[in-house]
Amino acid sequence: MITNPALPQGTRDFDPDTVRKRNYIFDVIRTVFELYGFQPLETPAMENLETLMGKYGEEGDKLIFKILNNGLGDQKNISRSKEAFEQVLLGKNDKNLTQRALKYDLTIPFARYVAMNYGQLQFPFRRYQIQPVWRADRPQKGRYREFYQCDADVVGSKALINEVELALMYNEVFSRLKMAGFSVNINNRKILKGIMEVSGVIKKEKLILGIIDKTDKIGFEGVKGELLNLGIEPVNLEKLLSAYSMNGSDHVKLSFLKQFLSGSETGLNGVSELEYVYEMISRSASGIQSAIHFDFTLARGLEYYTGIIFEVKAPARVKMGSIGGGGRYDDLTGLFGVPDIPGVGISFGVDRIYDVLEELDLFPRHVHDGTRVIFFFMGEEESRQAFGLMQQLRVKGVKSEMYHEQAKLDKQFRYATKKNIPYAVIIGNKEMEDRTCVLKDLRNGEQKSLTIEELLDVEF
Amino acid sequence: MITNPALPQGTRDFDPDTVRKRNYIFDVIRTVFELYGFQPLETPAMENLETLMGKYGEEGDKLIFKILNNGLGDQKNISRSKEAFEQVLLGKNDKNLTQRALKYDLTIPFARYVAMNYGQLQFPFRRYQIQPVWRADRPQKGRYREFYQCDADVVGSKALINEVELALMYNEVFSRLKMAGFSVNINNRKILKGIMEVSGVIKKEKLILGIIDKTDKIGFEGVKGELLNLGIEPVNLEKLLSAYSMNGSDHVKLSFLKQFLSGSETGLNGVSELEYVYEMISRSASGIQSAIHFDFTLARGLEYYTGIIFEVKAPARVKMGSIGGGGRYDDLTGLFGVPDIPGVGISFGVDRIYDVLEELDLFPRHVHDGTRVIFFFMGEEESRQAFGLMQQLRVKGVKSEMYHEQAKLDKQFRYATKKNIPYAVIIGNKEMEDRTCVLKDLRNGEQKSLTIEELLDVEF
Repeated sequence: MITNPALPQGTRDFDPDTVRKRNYIFDVIRTVFELYGFQPLETPAMENLETLMGKYGEEGDKLIFKILNNGLGDQKNISRSKEAFEQVLLGKNDKNLTQRALKYDLTIPFARYVAMNYGQLQFPFRRYQIQPVWRADRPQKGRYREFYQCDADVVGSKALINEVELALMYNEVFSRLKMAGFSVNINNRKILKGIMEVSGVIKKEKLILGIIDKTDKIGFEGVKGELLNLGIEPVNLEKLLSAYSMNGSDHVKLSFLKQFLSGSETGLNGVSELEYVYEMISRSASGIQSAIHFDFTLARGLEYYTGIIFEVKAPARVKMGSIGGGGRYDDLTGLFGVPDIPGVGISFGVDRIYDVLEELDLFPRHVHDGTRVIFFFMGEEESRQAFGLMQQLRVKGVKSEMYHEQAKLDKQFRYATKKNIPYAVIIGNKEMEDRTCVLKDLRNGEQKSLTIEELLDVEF
Repeated sequence: MITNPALPQGTRDFDPDTVRKRNYIFDVIRTVFELYGFQPLETPAMENLETLMGKYGEEGDKLIFKILNNGLGDQKNISRSKEAFEQVLLGKNDKNLTQRALKYDLTIPFARYVAMNYGQLQFPFRRYQIQPVWRADRPQKGRYREFYQCDADVVGSKALINEVELALMYNEVFSRLKMAGFSVNINNRKILKGIMEVSGVIKKEKLILGIIDKTDKIGFEGVKGELLNLGIEPVNLEKLLSAYSMNGSDHVKLSFLKQFLSGSETGLNGVSELEYVYEMISRSASGIQSAIHFDFTLARGLEYYTGIIFEVKAPARVKMGSIGGGGRYDDLTGLFGVPDIPGVGISFGVDRIYDVLEELDLFPRHVHDGTRVIFFFMGEEESRQAFGLMQQLRVKGVKSEMYHEQAKLDKQFRYATKKNIPYAVIIGNKEMEDRTCVLKDLRNGEQKSLTIEELLDVEF
């Protein structure tokens, strides 16, 4: 029976050029992670269903891909399988039908790993993880059911030096990717809380932060309008808005906040944390701090983050928005029975970073490099000679291949051109006798005759 | 509710050192693949269930991990879900319950990719693929439910040059891994067939090859014993055994076979193919051919392979057996409606290669390298100075980290030692004033005082 060759909805094949471009991004990120002392970790694609369920909220749970147990129809299992299926139809989980699932993110598996290996690990534990995750989201442009996540976390440390380093890592990665115009925005949940306290609106914190977080999209006036609708007392609203109308450099804003938050211990604490981060970043190699800014409208991950938070914005001209985010959290592993492990982490949105680099044409030319030299097939005898020569080039590290069979030169040229191979070596009858070869630059058509020794010295 | 942190049976976490060692293997293989003009391809973890089912035999089908559809219990789906489940209990597949599955190997997804993109691809298409696959096998020592496969194939070419290159690639990879004593064994299905023809036992080919393939395990006498039990006529058995008693160099054996197979066109064809491979390999850089040998007892993958076949054996002293295999096949994509795409490919058994390198202590020391330099935390002011200096080292590419907080030196030493960090930099009060630092080699305890400038010039 013939099967129609097709891909599951929302998944992608990655062709050679795409793999190379994505690996370029991974390599840059990985190099920076390692430079900052982070270590690689990999966890399985599957986790026990109970490890994942209940960790992502009701909506998240629905998007988990569950794996069917094997052997459901075996004689000894049938009645248990049927009962289990009834449970599943009621929206419950039953181990007799499904006990494993594909991981939904990298954070919960990491938490599971830390809880499982608590006694063996050295804290603070700095790990990075670059792996695919799966979500049964409705597929749409730019949203896939299988996609890579790329995280770095330090756990088991409350020290702010970690926040400093993570901000610098963001900065370093996007600088290395040459993404001019990116910005690393920093805020502190403690400052947000302080502003709510001082403005007398702490009870409406969640609603208000939800609105302020949209500043990017709806502008300051839009935010003002929505806040008005919340029925906040005018004097409180005025206070709140004065905090969000701050102008000036990061330094000036911090001074303002120190005044403004003088009635909130939490708020002042948040300010002094940012002052520390500010100072440490300025001690780092000159110039590097330019893309790191405070953004007091940033409010991501309300449920989860408790201290400093990060968001990376793509250059404004590409209209992509956030390409990374993270922050400090109080409790990584409590859900797995190991309390009191705080941490701070960042994440890179690899698919979006890919799209930005593509749109701005920022992938370096060398990323596309596959085969550098093709040896044309000019006849049985000639090809044997060519083969020996090619092996010598390979020993020198030059990526090479030989056209596989006798064929018209036209056809061989076409093959080389479509594969973007820059150089061809031609050894015909005459060259075989002379111990020479013709080297042709396929990009401009230029060619010259070289001795074998000369060919081996060419820098490809 | 607290979840017990545990891993699904048969799966593994890969800790930092294991990831690094495995990446070392992948990097060596990938470098050689690229050197030979192969291009990377990646396919999703999930395939449509119909893409996979029926491709691996009845036993294989049972080991496929199926993914449960989402939303089975939604009101509008319930009756269809129930019917579907009845089908599944009967051992059938039903799209209303499960329509996706985890990939079982890399070959079928590759075939699906080639069939889907037939019009766009340049043939011959040389691809490599290094990705995990999943099988619901009973977990046991050395057998996992998630493991990496690592394949290279050339499709759309019948040329023997591909076989030559694949043999050389095997040789190159294991030479680079410094696995002294490995051997790349080559045979040709056509020669096996010829021997059966000439010996008048072609009807029992499958049974006989099954026995001969066990030569490694049960020895020549064992094979002889089992063949006797098949009831082969004595004169035929004698002929058959004479072919398997060949002695001498590869060259001598080929001469013998040429005589022996003079009555079999297929057999002679097989011999001349090996002669070509033999000659081309000998044209390759000197010395490299030493580990490539003919093994006329090799008979792997009877159902699938049609020409030259490969198997790589680990050095005899580790008792591991096969660490790679492959061969030529006639039809990659017929099952997906695209006929006449022949190919040849090889595969690396990454888990076994890992175990061999571990047992023989062949992982290079640098593979374990994480952080090279740790800056101890000697006080708030001191740490600020240390941080600026560390950033300068990082700019030079030195993997560095700072201990995160004030702590007894003992504790900081212990942290560094457990993480195998070779160097510590200490900047105390005195050093801060002098603009110097103490550099300590943590492996032998030696230490010296350096100026900041001197530290920045050290080769770490």
